[in-house]
Amino acid sequence: MTNSVTRPLDTSGADYQKTHGYITDKDRYLARMKRIEGQARGIARMVDEEQYCIDILTQVSALTAALRGVALGLLDDHMKHCVLDAARLNPKAADAKMQEASEAVARFMRS
Amino acid sequence: MTNSVTRPLDTSGADYQKTHGYITDKDRYLARMKRIEGQARGIARMVDEEQYCIDILTQVSALTAALRGVALGLLDDHMKHCVLDAARLNPKAADAKMQEASEAVARFMRS
Amino acid sequence: MTNSVTRPLDTSGADYQKTHGYITDKDRYLARMKRIEGQARGIARMVDEEQYCIDILTQVSALTAALRGVALGLLDDHMKHCVLDAARLNPKAADAKMQEASEAVARFMRS
Amino acid sequence: MTNSVTRPLDTSGADYQKTHGYITDKDRYLARMKRIEGQARGIARMVDEEQYCIDILTQVSALTAALRGVALGLLDDHMKHCVLDAARLNPKAADAKMQEASEAVARFMRS
Repeated sequence: MTNSVTRPLDTSGADYQKTHGYITDKDRYLARMKRIEGQARGIARMVDEEQYCIDILTQVSALTAALRGVALGLLDDHMKHCVLDAARLNPKAADAKMQEASEAVARFMRS
Repeated sequence: MTNSVTRPLDTSGADYQKTHGYITDKDRYLARMKRIEGQARGIARMVDEEQYCIDILTQVSALTAALRGVALGLLDDHMKHCVLDAARLNPKAADAKMQEASEAVARFMRS
Repeated sequence: MTNSVTRPLDTSGADYQKTHGYITDKDRYLARMKRIEGQARGIARMVDEEQYCIDILTQVSALTAALRGVALGLLDDHMKHCVLDAARLNPKAADAKMQEASEAVARFMRS
Repeated sequence: MTNSVTRPLDTSGADYQKTHGYITDKDRYLARMKRIEGQARGIARMVDEEQYCIDILTQVSALTAALRGVALGLLDDHMKHCVLDAARLNPKAADAKMQEASEAVARFMRS
């Protein structure tokens, strides 16, 4: 996991905006991830208390849906900010960024 | 979330095995959920450190895949133990249990 | 694609019901597959007429959802009939059939 | 299903390229959809011949995976052509197009 500051892609477009798409909503994403962490802990507790399998599965489905919401949000923010900014200011970087976003979508769909 | 001991479905089949399918693997499920909780915490930290969106998305995909693995495992254990045991000992409970498992699969596929 | 009549699993349980779970709804499944085939043809036509990508994608999503409905229906019928019948009459075949159904669920979730 | 020629979004950017991202690969997409149509027909035939449920499910999974491949391809082509072209030539249209693409991804993930 490379920190954004040192990402090779960004150096080629030093002229465009440095912040990530999700930054304006950072607190909301942090709160959502906190809740997701709590859901994971809750599922571990259900296993530990030997609760009914189907009830545990229902909670795993809820957690998966919450994660998908986060993924769609991040992707949306990324495309509307990073990718479009790149397209406006650095067409070459935009192609690379779009390819990268496409691969992230494919990876997520297969996860 | 009802505890299994008090589930109405089970009372009708008081004669068959009480434990859940995943119990023999309980420690392994607890370890997997612990790891998943750590993955969720790691993603929150990436957001907090304002790392690159696509890198965060990659970790969200990995977490989703890990959760799906847990869901498939639980479902498999549930079907092989609870549902088949019911089918052998209490045909009526088996139909209800199969219906319940089917709904859990549908719910998970839509999550 | 083996025809069911010659499937090895079934020979070990020659005493239990031979028909498949979906047979009672066969006409409904045939009608759904006919509709799905028509949806596929409609998408090909949209591509040929060079319609807008997003509109085509929307139709691909609708077709995928229709297919998932068929898969969930087949799986449900299979479990309630083939698997439960096996469980009642031939416990050994039931284990094999449940394993097979579990693998089909996993395969479908990854598709 | 509106034909692309009359789409309102495009009229605002009359200066940028009119063709869709998938056009260069049109023949390949047509061939893929032809194959998918054949797969759907094959599944109908399996139902009609009362083949084994799990074998049918396996073919439904294969068809779903083929459709996802088409969807990912269309989305990728759309983003690299329509959306990036819009971003370069008509920033306002680009925002609308990115929003539209985001919604198509979300719709597809839920299908």
